[in-house]
Amino acid sequence: MEERIDPWHATVLTIFPEMFPGPLGLSLAGRALAKGTWRLDAVNIRDYATDKHRSVDDVPFGGGAGMVMRPDVLDAAIKANRGAGPLVYMTPRGRLLDQPLVRELAAGPGATILCGRFEGVDQRVLEANEAVEISLGDFVLSGGELPALVLLDAVVRLLPGVLGNQETLAEESFEWGLLEYPHYTRPAEWQGRAVPEVLISGHHEKIRDWRHRQSEEATRTRRPDLWDRYASARRRTETP
Amino acid sequence: MEERIDPWHATVLTIFPEMFPGPLGLSLAGRALAKGTWRLDAVNIRDYATDKHRSVDDVPFGGGAGMVMRPDVLDAAIKANRGAGPLVYMTPRGRLLDQPLVRELAAGPGATILCGRFEGVDQRVLEANEAVEISLGDFVLSGGELPALVLLDAVVRLLPGVLGNQETLAEESFEWGLLEYPHYTRPAEWQGRAVPEVLISGHHEKIRDWRHRQSEEATRTRRPDLWDRYASARRRTETP
Repeated sequence: MEERIDPWHATVLTIFPEMFPGPLGLSLAGRALAKGTWRLDAVNIRDYATDKHRSVDDVPFGGGAGMVMRPDVLDAAIKANRGAGPLVYMTPRGRLLDQPLVRELAAGPGATILCGRFEGVDQRVLEANEAVEISLGDFVLSGGELPALVLLDAVVRLLPGVLGNQETLAEESFEWGLLEYPHYTRPAEWQGRAVPEVLISGHHEKIRDWRHRQSEEATRTRRPDLWDRYASARRRTETP
Repeated sequence: MEERIDPWHATVLTIFPEMFPGPLGLSLAGRALAKGTWRLDAVNIRDYATDKHRSVDDVPFGGGAGMVMRPDVLDAAIKANRGAGPLVYMTPRGRLLDQPLVRELAAGPGATILCGRFEGVDQRVLEANEAVEISLGDFVLSGGELPALVLLDAVVRLLPGVLGNQETLAEESFEWGLLEYPHYTRPAEWQGRAVPEVLISGHHEKIRDWRHRQSEEATRTRRPDLWDRYASARRRTETP
């Protein structure tokens, strides 16, 4: 009997279902979607509103600007559509998205992603559904839809068969906690700027060393936070 | 004579121009685009290739997986289309995007955003054009297009007239370096979960205090990195 693997299943709850698959319908993610490597359901939260205006939001308790998405409407949308994997809510209050979290999600069966709009969603519906809150970074967007697209792009490229093996290996450098080394291609000399000599030496070990030093140097100067983590991990390894 | 303000001008250089405006054609950003508050030109980098296959990439010097975007093709695309403001390259090697950087870009005349694909772009074209390298976070995506859309969404919502004044004020809490407090709306009791009592007290000062403590608590427990920065800034202010 042939083993049947279910596609990775993304369910997106949004008031803008027409934003999906959007950019993910093109390029690698789009081909993988067409091939059935992953599956995408975009659900309109307004379909679960109970009034004739299809309202999903109301004024915040305690006052203040903006509107808040209602727990009862969101909960109905979640209960009716929840797929495999965690319920994810994209919010700047969440855990920062990083590659280990992307890998964890990609290894699972899928995710249901709730996209907030307005000032945000009622906290009780997140607690009642044990939502995993994930942040794209320390900036403010107009809704959770673009973060959901980013999360899905990161996950889908890790699914088996989406990238060639070569590219999958290439990303490992980032996963060691260092920034990537700089890239160069033809022409070898361009506007008086030559490619670093070592890269045309054909000496594989020297090239590897040079790239590793470039990664370390970029991380140290550009991202002291990553560098501190990398350096202390290295110290632990070297200590007998 | 009436003062004429030029719209904020985004130029995006990409091999997927059909991804733009994409999700930004809907919602607030879409209305602002239609009103002329901002302007978006999506340019196909392939139009600047010089061979009949419209190639934009070539093999990396030094070997390794994937392809690298050529400096000559990219430079031609940049020179022919560069608009007002900085040349931005979206890359995990860049400075992390945060709200102060968003505000800085929104205060300027616009940006030209270069979207990389494959393994990345030749480093020399970034140096020659003094590109500002910006990272969305410590994860790997299939290209710079989604990061460009995220950056534009963050910028556009800050442009004059896009949001009402109320919402603009509401985001200030995040800009003080704390995560937002939780939100609640009707119904006041839902599935046995009641809204925190203070929020229905009508006591504005107590509500403000409660929300501030909630912001502090969320930041301390969820984001020790932000909390350390906030706490040391507060110590500096309190020291006589």
